Amino acid sequence: MRWHIPRSHPRYESLKLREKLVEAFEAGIVVPQGLIAHGRGEAFDYILGEKSHDFALEAERATVAHLIISKKPIISVNGNYAALAAEEIARLSIETGAPIEVNLFYRSEERIAKIEKLLADHGAPKILGTNCEKTLIPGLESPRGIVCKEGIYTADFILVAIEDGDRTQALKRIGKKVAAIDLNPFSRTAQTADITIVDEAQRATRNMENIAKELKGNHDMLKQIILKYDNKAILSKAFKTIMERLEEAAAKGVIIEF
Amino acid sequence: MRWHIPRSHPRYESLKLREKLVEAFEAGIVVPQGLIAHGRGEAFDYILGEKSHDFALEAERATVAHLIISKKPIISVNGNYAALAAEEIARLSIETGAPIEVNLFYRSEERIAKIEKLLADHGAPKILGTNCEKTLIPGLESPRGIVCKEGIYTADFILVAIEDGDRTQALKRIGKKVAAIDLNPFSRTAQTADITIVDEAQRATRNMENIAKELKGNHDMLKQIILKYDNKAILSKAFKTIMERLEEAAAKGVIIEF
Repeated sequence: MRWHIPRSHPRYESLKLREKLVEAFEAGIVVPQGLIAHGRGEAFDYILGEKSHDFALEAERATVAHLIISKKPIISVNGNYAALAAEEIARLSIETGAPIEVNLFYRSEERIAKIEKLLADHGAPKILGTNCEKTLIPGLESPRGIVCKEGIYTADFILVAIEDGDRTQALKRIGKKVAAIDLNPFSRTAQTADITIVDEAQRATRNMENIAKELKGNHDMLKQIILKYDNKAILSKAFKTIMERLEEAAAKGVIIEF
Repeated sequence: MRWHIPRSHPRYESLKLREKLVEAFEAGIVVPQGLIAHGRGEAFDYILGEKSHDFALEAERATVAHLIISKKPIISVNGNYAALAAEEIARLSIETGAPIEVNLFYRSEERIAKIEKLLADHGAPKILGTNCEKTLIPGLESPRGIVCKEGIYTADFILVAIEDGDRTQALKRIGKKVAAIDLNPFSRTAQTADITIVDEAQRATRNMENIAKELKGNHDMLKQIILKYDNKAILSKAFKTIMERLEEAAAKGVIIEF
């Protein structure tokens, strides 16, 4: 079922990502539900023009600032996020000094081990997952609520990607500051997070790695970025952009095919 | 891998549908491409607020009228449609008297047989698929264009759901009247159909079953519904609703429903 995607294809990047996800599904890293979630993301990315808009870059800058400045930041990685951006996640972890916790909605120790290995192969320096002391997030039943005590449970800032709404809300209820990568600005995760990155996960993480390289020495600047950040304004801009793109499509009679 | 979805979950219906699709995937009824396609539909359903709007109900009424009044109507069922709404399809077929043809984009006789069985288990009285005389729709290469001679090929009215744009256009070229369930009003299927039902497939089919129960004795009313129906106006309303939802979201930066 594989085919060679020519670089000239107008949706080359998106089709390559879909292939990555299907390969990760076949390797047992992504679950079927993850394929559905990816399709949903694709639709929003298509509407957004498959690029990182200003509202995404602003949210990415704020996230990098928190990852660098926070006392105990962590990057939470699930199957889809690992499949799309393992290499970029490993580099973001190195650049910001924030460790990684592999944490799955459809939890299985075997799948966690596979994702740990994938991230370690890409050079991620500190990964929690299979061998940490476990505890439960209040308000989430097991196994959905299992986290590492020295990871998500005691973190002050958590970056999540393509995350479930219940879990994001549970993190907020116990006072965590949360940044979320989510192409769907309507999702509860997008609406609940302190920082909403409406961007594709690989692009977002690549952008954050570059931002971290550029700004990590400049703590005054990072503090300014955090102070000025307004997530409601960011979400409004994301909705406005989706609306403008759809208005344009409707006016031109351009038909959206995937 | 299953979990109990509490009824109180704000997205209960959507999550149940997703589980249904994953189960059907594991049973060999849905293909991986179908999972990704489902995600794309979910994206538009999010924007629409996961409910049946007036423009959908109007299109559903017109479809029911055609299914009852047409000389040779048929309900075309693919893997995703069967996975989402087998029970509702069977009941719609009973209420309207329209038979079913199982017809797949990724055709395999084994998968057709599984879907036939699923529909028969739910009481569908007449199902074409594996054991019918086959022919080809002009303009579509085999196996994509294979249909049953006594089914889609000679039908005067066809209901399709989550259908490929090429196939919908080919049906139109040979003079068929087509109603299409498609959450994406920008798709070629949505733009090509005579009646476009911008609604989730299970909700749409449940609505149509209820409409059929209510109106099936009243042929004058059914004829009036057909005469008055204006698909351009319906598509305009769907686009307008999407814009209004996005405008509201852009103004508030937040959405109430999710």
